[in-house]
Amino acid sequence: MNGADALLHTLTNNGVDVCFTNPGTSEMHFVAALDQQDNMRSILGLFEGAVTGAADGYGRMAGKPACTLLHLGPGLANGLANLHNARRAYTPIINIVGEHATYHRELDAPLTSDIHGFASPVSSWIGTIARAEDTGAQAVAAIEASRAFPGSIATLIAPADTAWSETTALGGSADVRGPAPFDAAAVDAAARALRDGKRAALLLNGTATGEAGLADAARIRSATGALVLGDTFLARAARGAGRPDVPKLPYFAEQALEALDGIDVLLVAGTKAPVSFFAYPGVPSELTPSGAEPIVLADPTQDAAGALAALAEALGVGGSAPEVSAFDPPARPRGQHLDPDLIAASVGNLLPEQAIIVNEAATSGFAIPDLTARAAPHDGLDLTGGAIGMGIPAATGAAVACPDRKVVNLQADGSALYTIQALWTQAREGLDVTTVLFNNRKYAILQVEFMRVGANPGPKAMDMLDLSRPDIDFVALAGSLGVPGSRATTADEFHRALGEGLATPGPYLVEAII
Amino acid sequence: MNGADALLHTLTNNGVDVCFTNPGTSEMHFVAALDQQDNMRSILGLFEGAVTGAADGYGRMAGKPACTLLHLGPGLANGLANLHNARRAYTPIINIVGEHATYHRELDAPLTSDIHGFASPVSSWIGTIARAEDTGAQAVAAIEASRAFPGSIATLIAPADTAWSETTALGGSADVRGPAPFDAAAVDAAARALRDGKRAALLLNGTATGEAGLADAARIRSATGALVLGDTFLARAARGAGRPDVPKLPYFAEQALEALDGIDVLLVAGTKAPVSFFAYPGVPSELTPSGAEPIVLADPTQDAAGALAALAEALGVGGSAPEVSAFDPPARPRGQHLDPDLIAASVGNLLPEQAIIVNEAATSGFAIPDLTARAAPHDGLDLTGGAIGMGIPAATGAAVACPDRKVVNLQADGSALYTIQALWTQAREGLDVTTVLFNNRKYAILQVEFMRVGANPGPKAMDMLDLSRPDIDFVALAGSLGVPGSRATTADEFHRALGEGLATPGPYLVEAII
Repeated sequence: MNGADALLHTLTNNGVDVCFTNPGTSEMHFVAALDQQDNMRSILGLFEGAVTGAADGYGRMAGKPACTLLHLGPGLANGLANLHNARRAYTPIINIVGEHATYHRELDAPLTSDIHGFASPVSSWIGTIARAEDTGAQAVAAIEASRAFPGSIATLIAPADTAWSETTALGGSADVRGPAPFDAAAVDAAARALRDGKRAALLLNGTATGEAGLADAARIRSATGALVLGDTFLARAARGAGRPDVPKLPYFAEQALEALDGIDVLLVAGTKAPVSFFAYPGVPSELTPSGAEPIVLADPTQDAAGALAALAEALGVGGSAPEVSAFDPPARPRGQHLDPDLIAASVGNLLPEQAIIVNEAATSGFAIPDLTARAAPHDGLDLTGGAIGMGIPAATGAAVACPDRKVVNLQADGSALYTIQALWTQAREGLDVTTVLFNNRKYAILQVEFMRVGANPGPKAMDMLDLSRPDIDFVALAGSLGVPGSRATTADEFHRALGEGLATPGPYLVEAII
Repeated sequence: MNGADALLHTLTNNGVDVCFTNPGTSEMHFVAALDQQDNMRSILGLFEGAVTGAADGYGRMAGKPACTLLHLGPGLANGLANLHNARRAYTPIINIVGEHATYHRELDAPLTSDIHGFASPVSSWIGTIARAEDTGAQAVAAIEASRAFPGSIATLIAPADTAWSETTALGGSADVRGPAPFDAAAVDAAARALRDGKRAALLLNGTATGEAGLADAARIRSATGALVLGDTFLARAARGAGRPDVPKLPYFAEQALEALDGIDVLLVAGTKAPVSFFAYPGVPSELTPSGAEPIVLADPTQDAAGALAALAEALGVGGSAPEVSAFDPPARPRGQHLDPDLIAASVGNLLPEQAIIVNEAATSGFAIPDLTARAAPHDGLDLTGGAIGMGIPAATGAAVACPDRKVVNLQADGSALYTIQALWTQAREGLDVTTVLFNNRKYAILQVEFMRVGANPGPKAMDMLDLSRPDIDFVALAGSLGVPGSRATTADEFHRALGEGLATPGPYLVEAII
């Protein structure tokens, strides 16, 4: 057994059994070890942004980490943006980053770089294997770090000679640390405030947006009239028929401030007090209304679902039936026009039971939450870190985690082009992902933001937001990577194409010209 | 004038007049400032790896920096791999990285990250603008850092409020520091060794592979019989008819050791003593033969061309005519077969005068140096840092720098898929780039490396090196991004297609199925 074998065995013995990878020479012993280890599924990505984004989608849906296998510092660097998103989603991920042999590093060969430096901004834990014998113990430390509640990114740097040298030491069982207790005093204070008739808003993320957390939030809402909101971007939320309808805090600061206007207390569960996504001249960055008292029931490291259960109990509604959405999907849209609202209606109309919606639709996705709230029950995954290029990879990873569920990826064009390569992995693995590609041929969000930041764009500036010169043919692009698809320019065409995509096992892309 | 205006004016006043960008909300004031500043050409990339790779190709050919404009930490992160390559090429680049407003950073909004941390592994200089008034001075410092010989990457972090706030302070003129003097004592020692009949090899990179440096190296070779070699990967080299034919040190360690076998002294100009690209079990990592004395005439910060001139002078051949290649391109290949050697012959046969060859062909490019050595005079740019995905972007940037020269990008399939988005920028800007896409449907280099590292790949392992399931259609892929192309499966087809590509103004892609 060499170090690479020890690493793979320790991972699979601890339930880490999916590896997303784009390997290189320094990782060849790990790749060879795959054939010695039946329990590890290895999935190739054409680019590391596809690899790490897939690990994010996988981790959110599987509730446990995948590992990535990345080629030295540049391979890790290519995956950093989606690791940033995963960090913001508290997704557990274990990066295995190959490194030059220990004696080779000091020679400063062309691919030498500061891997630790690249890893630091996204990793909660970084370890470097010094000798083959340390591999198992280091792997256990990485698993424990990544799985400690609520989940984070652990990066294990593995020099090539530690992989090819012999060892007898496997790692043992990882201890997985659960959430810290919620703040019981804060729950008491919240219960008092609500009983006193204070106008309250609950802001949710993390475990608070699972089925149990949402049910308790809905009980509290019914009992007290409190406003219940999710964060603007949720790592994972239970949605649709049979679940409480919980809207999200609006993206734009002015609308978020309006949504929270007039509250006396802001109750926070599984997140933190809200802040504006960007700063704008003359607009506050902190969104808690002045005069409102923030009460943190549970921060992201604490038991947010438990805090909501305790609060519902304290209010005497712990056992009550929560108000949930009826199954009442939007009507099938018809006609010769096509716009994001019509597309959202089709999605809500056709959404299969237990689908997974990955939403990176940007401005084109504003109507999605409303028009899927009474659709079939599903899970929703959002772009948590703002680094575009998450959608196609995360949909890929979610489909690996949940092979019996349809994944619907709502995808903006500009963002799609960041990590379009992940479509190939969907084709290769036969993953059941239907991509709705909103092709508005521009970075539409930036056209909005231009006005909001008070800048005055001229033609050269506007040209930097334009994707129409030349137009991109997403059906041909998907086809070139092995994913079939079709183009829709009317509501009728779109509905038919989406229906076909959803009925097609494996990947499919619908390009919606809007 | 706001900070963004001050930044752009200071850059253009110092000759930095091309900006490769993919901007976001925090950069909107810089984008707006483009319309106030006629002298700055702004070029959109669909992904930051395309942006930074273009800046690398531009900087190598223009001999001065472009700036990049990147969106916060994740935007920079997406560009890091090609910045790693640029760092290894000593390419001057100025990154302008947008950041949240100074007062917004501490709120840890979703896109907040450790930008300084991301930048550190690739940057020789990092500055953060604290107030709008500091912008001009910081921009000058960034220019001076990036242009100090031999060139490096300077990263300027620009918080949004420093861009939108008013200022009256423009930056002045940047002082550009030239090379440090070469080591005169080393030149004397080298001259003595050569006169004493020692068997010598010269190893060249940097300014030593420009026309003057190569001419002096050829004079020394003719006078002494010394072996002259370039580094395996050269930032930029003058090649073809009328230039000395200088082979490169082979990639594989065993072959490199064989090439240098029997030398008494290794003379180094513009680089450092050679090391193996990767470590392999039982193979030395340092390639200078034991017993050979290394003499560093000029390290990368010193005047390597000057050192070679002085050495030629010391040997009494300073004024002599260097031995250069005749114009004797390979014959046009014919027939029903197609392989990398036939392709290299077509390239050599058809190469236009003063073309720029960007070589990221990996295993498919082994025959290129030989079969272009007597082709029309041209420049060659190699993958200096080993981070794949450099070719299409660097070709893009080289074409921006040299609009009157044809760029020929020799491109491996696996590497192409890292930054394929750059084809769209070639279409958008009408850049004169012909891409030869070597489609062997695998990571061929890794099949070779697998054997060399002593690993024993089984079917799961081999599957991680395979790009044939599904096959990728590069003609359709290029077409979807606005670049026309054709597919060749025989030498006849390839020659005709390459001829058509070279005759077509603007971008064109020839997919060679090999």
